[in-house]
Amino acid sequence: MDELIEPINTYVPLNPEERNWLRQAVVKQSYRKHEVIFSEGQVAEELYFLVKGCVRLYYDVEGNDKTAFFYTEGKFICAGESYTFGVPARESYQAIEDTELYILTKPAIEKLLLASPKFEILARIAVEDELITYQRLLASFITKSAEQRYVEFLDTQGELFQRVPQQYIASFLGVSPETLSRIKARVHKKRLS
Amino acid sequence: MDELIEPINTYVPLNPEERNWLRQAVVKQSYRKHEVIFSEGQVAEELYFLVKGCVRLYYDVEGNDKTAFFYTEGKFICAGESYTFGVPARESYQAIEDTELYILTKPAIEKLLLASPKFEILARIAVEDELITYQRLLASFITKSAEQRYVEFLDTQGELFQRVPQQYIASFLGVSPETLSRIKARVHKKRLS
Repeated sequence: MDELIEPINTYVPLNPEERNWLRQAVVKQSYRKHEVIFSEGQVAEELYFLVKGCVRLYYDVEGNDKTAFFYTEGKFICAGESYTFGVPARESYQAIEDTELYILTKPAIEKLLLASPKFEILARIAVEDELITYQRLLASFITKSAEQRYVEFLDTQGELFQRVPQQYIASFLGVSPETLSRIKARVHKKRLS
Repeated sequence: MDELIEPINTYVPLNPEERNWLRQAVVKQSYRKHEVIFSEGQVAEELYFLVKGCVRLYYDVEGNDKTAFFYTEGKFICAGESYTFGVPARESYQAIEDTELYILTKPAIEKLLLASPKFEILARIAVEDELITYQRLLASFITKSAEQRYVEFLDTQGELFQRVPQQYIASFLGVSPETLSRIKARVHKKRLS
């Protein structure tokens, strides 16, 4: 098994024929750190599967960008509304490390969906995975303070702390880098006591 | 066709056998206005399909509830993280009109998914629909002011204005009822000029 099939197999086990179809359907693409993968205003025609690196989801808010999420290995990425309805996307994606993605174009996905019902199951599970990500994000944005969200981030994506520039974590929490430093000091003091 | 099959058929056309399976799989349930359908802290074992009325999604924020979305006829409702991982949900759903739902339990869904690949397609489309709702919501929460969100609500779900109590719309926008009145006056003045 390889870097594509192994993580996909944890979603749905594929037989050798299905693995070949999938390998033929995807195109691998590398992005350098800081490179923008997809920009607001474009129409999404592709879905991505992340096998190496880290990608941030962000929105433009009157000229400033606001980070909403960090994707890591094994995650699907798709600007759903834009992809489904062919409208310009509101979100952007940027590599914040050297990153490798497998790209699935719309025609390639449609061909896979017709080739085996297994890909229909895979598509559903991939969309569920992304839905759960968004449901968690929305719940956190609505119900939690910046400090509570920092603690949640530590507990669920703590390994990202060394990887993600602090300004993006501050933007994700909706605070300034100075406030993030104060939150960190407070939380770590509480955890040590 | 009936109130269940007709809207479902707009997602995926079902043959007579599949329609019967679906009819046998669901249970219809009525809720009175104000009745809570599902509460935070419960584990979701069901998915809902709304055929009549209006349901609000809300979160408890330190004793106050915060409205995040309004579901109307033809929409699926599911507390995804809780349903998928069996963890307590963070969200609650309440009927804000007399409401009728078709309930699909987890075993009923699993049986349908095995019965015909059509239900796998339906499940994917239902999840995509909910994902798009959440992606829009998150983008709006992050990028827009209360006034901009009011205008977006008017443009996309304007028919709800007569149906939804104003305090929930204010809570959805994250403002007080007094601020909502001021926003309304400002927007309507702009639209008339």
